[in-house]
Amino acid sequence: MRLRNVKNKDEILNNSKILVKNPYECINNWKKVFDNNNPIEIEIGCGKGNFIINKALQNPSINFVGIEKYDSVLARALEKVDYEIDNLKFIRLDALNVDQVFNKEVSCIYLNFSDPWPKKRHSERRLTSKKFLEKYDNLFINEKIIIQKTDNVSLYEYSVVSLNSYGYKIVEMSLDLHKSEFNNNNVMTEYEEKFSKKGIKINYLLAKK
Amino acid sequence: MRLRNVKNKDEILNNSKILVKNPYECINNWKKVFDNNNPIEIEIGCGKGNFIINKALQNPSINFVGIEKYDSVLARALEKVDYEIDNLKFIRLDALNVDQVFNKEVSCIYLNFSDPWPKKRHSERRLTSKKFLEKYDNLFINEKIIIQKTDNVSLYEYSVVSLNSYGYKIVEMSLDLHKSEFNNNNVMTEYEEKFSKKGIKINYLLAKK
Repeated sequence: MRLRNVKNKDEILNNSKILVKNPYECINNWKKVFDNNNPIEIEIGCGKGNFIINKALQNPSINFVGIEKYDSVLARALEKVDYEIDNLKFIRLDALNVDQVFNKEVSCIYLNFSDPWPKKRHSERRLTSKKFLEKYDNLFINEKIIIQKTDNVSLYEYSVVSLNSYGYKIVEMSLDLHKSEFNNNNVMTEYEEKFSKKGIKINYLLAKK
Repeated sequence: MRLRNVKNKDEILNNSKILVKNPYECINNWKKVFDNNNPIEIEIGCGKGNFIINKALQNPSINFVGIEKYDSVLARALEKVDYEIDNLKFIRLDALNVDQVFNKEVSCIYLNFSDPWPKKRHSERRLTSKKFLEKYDNLFINEKIIIQKTDNVSLYEYSVVSLNSYGYKIVEMSLDLHKSEFNNNNVMTEYEEKFSKKGIKINYLLAKK
């Protein structure tokens, strides 16, 4: 997600108590960061943070890490939480480096409204490409669980085939999440609220390996 | 597919040269029926026959068998071909008995616009339920290939999860077949033409095990 520049973004990032400034030093160390042994779930590309903040508030016995590449976007998320939430951290990180920050420490990966990279020559950049699935392998502590939501049909089709090809099984699937049995505990992202108001259907999957 | 009664259906069935009257006797014997070693592809629930007839005409080096349960529907299909097509046969059969008619003789199964059986307590009757996937196992000669088209989103979601659970991988997928790369050789069914004219999108998958 790109956003126009946020002028005071450096100030916001520097002052945030919920932003981990040295993510690379946290590898093998996340239990200490959270000071407990609760499971850790991460959102790669957390955008303006609605999803991960509300997930954390609703699930105090799970730890959450929101990962975002762009300073300005991250600043918007951090602005929403000027207080500490014990089970929530943010990090600024390119998804390409996610395997340098987590090592067998993650229980679940959320991919919400990821960049679809529509051109075929960019398909490796999609967060469900083989290149990324290989990276994710080292993140998971036990069973590998990926939960994806997207309005983009092409990305969704690509994801199912790519996940299957890499050994994941689709365990839950809906082409209209908000009208499905999987909507009970659904927490909406900013995108999702906007799209959903326009009547755009949300595609959802939960894959396990 | 149900259809109102066709009065002269018995006559049509009796006179048809393309209907195999004794399907149970064909098991282990389909090469003889077609008098060649070409691969055999079957459509379970062939309805009024458009799909399988055109597939046969377009692919002379593949043998096709259209399977339909209802006399009246089958009569409508048979009426369309009052001549012999070397590589096409029809049989009247309940899908439940398909494993009594083919034994390691099938290369591909087509499931087009199958009954969605929307009630959960009827889910076993869906042609992609575990119960049917178990039956199909014995049909295939080599790699197991199932190709499904449906307008019914619930059946489609169910099928992906059920196929994955049974060890199939989704290799091709489109939520809008007619606008996809998989539409090149697509042959439409009667349903498909009707739905498509109304702007209803066709869900497509090709699964392999």
